[in-house]
Amino acid sequence: MAKRAENEQAQKAFGWAARDPSGILSPFHFSRRESGDDDVTVKILYCGVCHSDLHIEWGFTKYPILPGHEIVGLVTAVGSSVHKFKVGDRVGVGVIVGSCQTCDICEQSLENYCPKVIFTYNSTDPDGTNTYGGYSDMIVVHQRFVLQFPDNLPSDAGAPLLCAGITVYSPMKYYGMTEPGKHLGVAGLGGLGHIAVKIGKAFGLKVTVISTSPKKEDEAIKKLGADAFVLSSDPVKLKAAVNTMDYIIDTIAAVHPLAPLLSLLKMDGKLVTLGLPEKPLELPIFPLVLGRKLVGGSDIGGMKETQEMLDFCAKHNITADIELISVDSINMAMERLAKSDVKYRFVIDIANSLSPS
Amino acid sequence: MAKRAENEQAQKAFGWAARDPSGILSPFHFSRRESGDDDVTVKILYCGVCHSDLHIEWGFTKYPILPGHEIVGLVTAVGSSVHKFKVGDRVGVGVIVGSCQTCDICEQSLENYCPKVIFTYNSTDPDGTNTYGGYSDMIVVHQRFVLQFPDNLPSDAGAPLLCAGITVYSPMKYYGMTEPGKHLGVAGLGGLGHIAVKIGKAFGLKVTVISTSPKKEDEAIKKLGADAFVLSSDPVKLKAAVNTMDYIIDTIAAVHPLAPLLSLLKMDGKLVTLGLPEKPLELPIFPLVLGRKLVGGSDIGGMKETQEMLDFCAKHNITADIELISVDSINMAMERLAKSDVKYRFVIDIANSLSPS
Repeated sequence: MAKRAENEQAQKAFGWAARDPSGILSPFHFSRRESGDDDVTVKILYCGVCHSDLHIEWGFTKYPILPGHEIVGLVTAVGSSVHKFKVGDRVGVGVIVGSCQTCDICEQSLENYCPKVIFTYNSTDPDGTNTYGGYSDMIVVHQRFVLQFPDNLPSDAGAPLLCAGITVYSPMKYYGMTEPGKHLGVAGLGGLGHIAVKIGKAFGLKVTVISTSPKKEDEAIKKLGADAFVLSSDPVKLKAAVNTMDYIIDTIAAVHPLAPLLSLLKMDGKLVTLGLPEKPLELPIFPLVLGRKLVGGSDIGGMKETQEMLDFCAKHNITADIELISVDSINMAMERLAKSDVKYRFVIDIANSLSPS
Repeated sequence: MAKRAENEQAQKAFGWAARDPSGILSPFHFSRRESGDDDVTVKILYCGVCHSDLHIEWGFTKYPILPGHEIVGLVTAVGSSVHKFKVGDRVGVGVIVGSCQTCDICEQSLENYCPKVIFTYNSTDPDGTNTYGGYSDMIVVHQRFVLQFPDNLPSDAGAPLLCAGITVYSPMKYYGMTEPGKHLGVAGLGGLGHIAVKIGKAFGLKVTVISTSPKKEDEAIKKLGADAFVLSSDPVKLKAAVNTMDYIIDTIAAVHPLAPLLSLLKMDGKLVTLGLPEKPLELPIFPLVLGRKLVGGSDIGGMKETQEMLDFCAKHNITADIELISVDSINMAMERLAKSDVKYRFVIDIANSLSPS
């Protein structure tokens, strides 16, 4: 398998991959396709470590798996039909690298929802080969799925915007959660949550972090700029915040009760859930009906909106709070990530730490 | 208690009420307040029998309870501040008869969601007396909560619009489920469902009835004008309809699975639940996130929108399909309603059958 991966395509590539459900990552020689007319070839500088990079437990993993979908790099080659990018440009690649490009959904630049979406890793390219992600030295991507990385965004702390950023930005736009002065609750303060706080503030919202961890109060308010904190494990504090919020971005990935969150919403309040708990959640209907509240979902975002989000973050100086690591620390990082022990995103310094040994 | 009800206010009134959790209704002498400056006094002609009239099991019933909130009648007196109505006008009274009239929610004419909403029965008036509903000869209502009943709407078959009609119309407007050519699923074909079919067609939608009862197919299509029918208890038929609907109005009052309904929705599909199942429903998160779908609730509608709905139904000749009964058949009707054995709404012919014996 590894042998085939190394030789099946034209360009040699190198990264770190997991060979089995242990999830342990190790050096991996593979190959990428020749740059086609519409392709952009990218030398990878940095790659964020997203919680979903851990999700080998979902049961549809093809090994070897080479994660990473928060990629910032430099263009090293472009195909003859590529005019938007040139060699030397700094670019981003996010969660998806392909879609049918012709359906109604793609027409709306919601490529992420296209039934034929191709994810940056653990997906299958039209040529039948596996896609491999950003824990690697280079990548070849169709120009539609490459983002211009704004000049004033740092490559390392900007990288997580390519997944975490768009994942919180897109639902705020789609569900109309951007009216200045309104009150946003952010449930869960991890990779997604800490960016939701910053984007919420940039939209002019009052932002309250909702967490079961009292340790996060100081962090949320003093470091991230949230206006308030609700300790959701404390019934008294929860009760004091009932009926005060217009929107909630729920970033909690585990199975959790929705009833307390719905109680925090005012009439017409909107709760958007972004995590993918493995089991259904309990949905109490009375608050939905009697308060005309809604629970909606959202999954990353389309290419046009991802560019819009990067430009928005650049304008408002929004980046992730990161811990920069070398690629040989990735297994430690994965372990800590599984325990939510990171503030708030690991980013791998690919260019300075990845070398074929 | 009954004695107090009879004498505590200025105007004698008569109806049928239940005295205890048996829910058996029997003749009941009570009283209504004197018509105030803002009040409209209505001689009741017809009153619909809503499923919620059965809901003595919710545990917050005050006895005696006199149900009925789909009331059509004639104005017999108006207060000095009432200019919109005059004696002899045909009017409607729906689910609510009061609210604070000053809060932000009331300002938007969403009186139904006002924290101080007063329901037409089983609620408490500001003077401390119980409210009694439309299974009675007359009612006194603040003018804000009285509707002009359009000329071409029949009093009997039009009465159910005052609850069932607005309950389906309001969410279709609020959640944007009115785009001509879009595909609406109506889950459950009872009092609410059959009107949702008609209103959906009037908005220019393709309407599919979703039901576990194969007997309803003919009825849905030939009688009510639905375009299609999905037998949701048949996995093959359900599967054929997967990913075809833009909206679903879910009128099912019992605990039921949401997953099959969510599977029928296309990307960006919206499911609005109107029933009040006693237990939480299971909400699978994957379809919400991966298809950007939402589950929302809605509860009746405000006064301005209720008038708009009546005018819309009058324009499109929408009425309920009813079984007209005399008041002394009400206990039989309640039993049949509990078994969903009605096509599709009982309406009591109050004026011709109610007389103090």
